[in-house]
Amino acid sequence: MAATRLYLDWNGTAPLHQAARDAMLHALDLYGNPNSVHGEGRAARAAIEAARRQVASLTGAEPAHVVFTSGATEAANMVLTPEFRMGRTPLTIGHLYTSAIEHPAVLEGGRFPKEKISEIPVTSDGIVDLVVLETMLSAHDKASGLPMVAIMLANNETGILQPVYEAAKIAQAFGGVFVVDAVQAAGRVPLDIKAIGADFLIISSHKIGGPKGAGALVSRGEMLMPKPLIHGGGQEKGHRSGTENALAVIGFGAAAAAAVAEFDSRNAAVEKLRDRLEEGMRLAAPDVIIHGKDGPRVPNTSFFTLPGLKSETGQIAFDLEGLAISAGSACSSGKVGESHVLAAMGRDPKLGALRISLGFTTTEEDVDRAIDAFARIAGRRKTAGAAA
Amino acid sequence: MAATRLYLDWNGTAPLHQAARDAMLHALDLYGNPNSVHGEGRAARAAIEAARRQVASLTGAEPAHVVFTSGATEAANMVLTPEFRMGRTPLTIGHLYTSAIEHPAVLEGGRFPKEKISEIPVTSDGIVDLVVLETMLSAHDKASGLPMVAIMLANNETGILQPVYEAAKIAQAFGGVFVVDAVQAAGRVPLDIKAIGADFLIISSHKIGGPKGAGALVSRGEMLMPKPLIHGGGQEKGHRSGTENALAVIGFGAAAAAAVAEFDSRNAAVEKLRDRLEEGMRLAAPDVIIHGKDGPRVPNTSFFTLPGLKSETGQIAFDLEGLAISAGSACSSGKVGESHVLAAMGRDPKLGALRISLGFTTTEEDVDRAIDAFARIAGRRKTAGAAA
Repeated sequence: MAATRLYLDWNGTAPLHQAARDAMLHALDLYGNPNSVHGEGRAARAAIEAARRQVASLTGAEPAHVVFTSGATEAANMVLTPEFRMGRTPLTIGHLYTSAIEHPAVLEGGRFPKEKISEIPVTSDGIVDLVVLETMLSAHDKASGLPMVAIMLANNETGILQPVYEAAKIAQAFGGVFVVDAVQAAGRVPLDIKAIGADFLIISSHKIGGPKGAGALVSRGEMLMPKPLIHGGGQEKGHRSGTENALAVIGFGAAAAAAVAEFDSRNAAVEKLRDRLEEGMRLAAPDVIIHGKDGPRVPNTSFFTLPGLKSETGQIAFDLEGLAISAGSACSSGKVGESHVLAAMGRDPKLGALRISLGFTTTEEDVDRAIDAFARIAGRRKTAGAAA
Repeated sequence: MAATRLYLDWNGTAPLHQAARDAMLHALDLYGNPNSVHGEGRAARAAIEAARRQVASLTGAEPAHVVFTSGATEAANMVLTPEFRMGRTPLTIGHLYTSAIEHPAVLEGGRFPKEKISEIPVTSDGIVDLVVLETMLSAHDKASGLPMVAIMLANNETGILQPVYEAAKIAQAFGGVFVVDAVQAAGRVPLDIKAIGADFLIISSHKIGGPKGAGALVSRGEMLMPKPLIHGGGQEKGHRSGTENALAVIGFGAAAAAAVAEFDSRNAAVEKLRDRLEEGMRLAAPDVIIHGKDGPRVPNTSFFTLPGLKSETGQIAFDLEGLAISAGSACSSGKVGESHVLAAMGRDPKLGALRISLGFTTTEEDVDRAIDAFARIAGRRKTAGAAA
């Protein structure tokens, strides 16, 4: 049994990046309320605005178009609403079209009632079916209000990149509002709200090496904005009330700056490690199915099915080997459920699948240890199969 | 000019308590997603549940009845909604009755439309007028749904305690749901949800020495709960989705435990200091008006008007003396507005007022320095008045 733990669940949450940790340790003493006019308040305000510029830089947006939230789930609930404003004029969104493989934070549809949400199917390759999206939007009832389309840039379970650039054009052709959940993509693939043509991006601090408790809703402009989800003191220009979580926001900013600065080196290294991992798994168990291997993926994620190994059993087996990996997304209840992503891809979700996701501190030795653990677990599975 | 800064705006936000800081420094390495089943996830989960017990203990509630949020503003928006459930049965709240001196997070009424919110006036003593509340509830249209009453336990500007025990009885007599904003009261006066007879309490981490970014909606039971404000992964038993802000929650828990352990000594000391401050101010400027001095107040707050000194001028003057104090609540925009609390008390809000709020690290020397600064500012005001 290995003495030290090995963390390979970076899509679930990332360990704190050293830059975020340093910024937060410094900010522990920055206790002023950023809305106070005294010196302590102004110091906290300045640090938050610096973080806003750092997060803007990660997404190609203007700093003024970054609204800090308590996380990506809140940002999703904020933007997914029938009630918008264009300047001061109310504007109604009639229907939400979102993909079947979205994270629950988007799939639940925020403030849209169930009957105003439609799911766009995905192909067996795990890619949102844009032909169907176009058909759906052609049938959209304009009298009910504008359509909204929400598609993730990278799927959290498979890592498969979605055709958001093309989807943006389709949404635009139908006068729709286009929202991109970029939580798993940020820092892993190029991200520019204008280049994508999205109206809104959702990002999360703790997936890029910042602390939990911060996220952002990033907009392309500031005319079109959703009705606030959280009212009160009018912070964040009235878009999100509540005293800003200065510590988390400062850590988020530092992690965003690091993600920009280290983008090329980090991703080239991680992709090489992921390929090494998948090659090692294939050699150890030739029957392993690696989902999405042949299409565009984020560089750090490997989502696989080992025939005869249930997700739950597999995850516990890796945990006992000292490895933290995941069976899909980190679920609400701590239970390992069936993957709605696999189901949407037309696979039998009962087959089960496991996710190994690497990060910027993962080493070659870590990957080799993961391959060894995989080989042992795959071997036991075979033995058990033979004995049965 | 004093070399070091003196922070006397504890109602705006409190510096981190040493216990919270220690707990958070330890927790920086507790990076697992608390919803993951692997060892790292379980460790984060255990720490969050320990914090839940600590926060429950501060409020006299069961740990199972504490829902963590990103702060008090979110908790207010969560509970102030026409849509509730009693078990699995939907239940409608027809109208919100809230006091004219509430914090904007409550005064804005959360998810209630404007026409379903009524303000309960306060007396000239700054106390919610329960006679009017009773009249209002007598006229409540039961066909529209149950009434909801929301009253703060301690006002953030004046520190004046509100008659929530009596209000709870009145609300109950009319079958209403009773919500208490205990943000400024927690740790400063005894707080027990059952003793008060409240259905819900709202508390905030950063007002009691914890970090910003955490708060809680505390309920008396678990049958009657509001429709979630933030949907998604189903965390917090489905009441509040989104990965828990483990770091802030752990700091919140430590601050809550310290508030319980140090309750008597801390408050006795702070009250003595506040009385020293007010006596010193009275000697330096006999015309100072201390709002709420003769009624029940939290022990740390002094809210005063110095005739001839505008709030904004006064706050800047103290800031230049090295003292961080406030002109009422920490406002959204960093601007010093007129106090809606003074206006509700029937005073001319143009008179202006300043708030000095003390905390658990405030010393006698600090108070004497504040008195000296006050005396100088009051003196300049007189000189300016004579010269005019």
